[in-house]
Amino acid sequence: MSQYRIEVRVKPRPGLLDPQGKAIHHSLNSLGWEGVHDVRVGKAIYIDLDAADEAAALEAAGVMCRKLLANPVTEDFEVTMVGALEGAGS
Amino acid sequence: MSQYRIEVRVKPRPGLLDPQGKAIHHSLNSLGWEGVHDVRVGKAIYIDLDAADEAAALEAAGVMCRKLLANPVTEDFEVTMVGALEGAGS
Repeated sequence: MSQYRIEVRVKPRPGLLDPQGKAIHHSLNSLGWEGVHDVRVGKAIYIDLDAADEAAALEAAGVMCRKLLANPVTEDFEVTMVGALEGAGS
Repeated sequence: MSQYRIEVRVKPRPGLLDPQGKAIHHSLNSLGWEGVHDVRVGKAIYIDLDAADEAAALEAAGVMCRKLLANPVTEDFEVTMVGALEGAGS
């Protein structure tokens, strides 16, 4: 059993309203970045967990997304491995 | 001038309180994932912008983080290139 850090990115599906993204988009334009055309805001979630190997850690994180972290109707998610953590097995 | 999509991840600095992460951590443990040791929650921000090249797009996104997107006292940020968008130059 090793300890891994997983990064999950949850973002609003294309076409769905994203008021936080709209607000940041407007602010960036107001601050002078006229070349910004769109901003979408989601969540970046970092999970430290025990798993037998990298594949098992990624699989577990995918299940967490479907059960808790992402709204399947309005959000998409991506799961990536950050790496194994030192001091694992404690 | 091409159009690029940049991904920015803003996360709470290590050691700082993260109540949203604590809540997700507790929920995951309650749902049976006993092997989850820590959860941190930040923002994933996707920015579509015009820039001369990839380096200029990344540079602009870094400035946006320092001026607006991240709190320099409590948050760290990472900027990565997602890629050039098709239909650019319009």
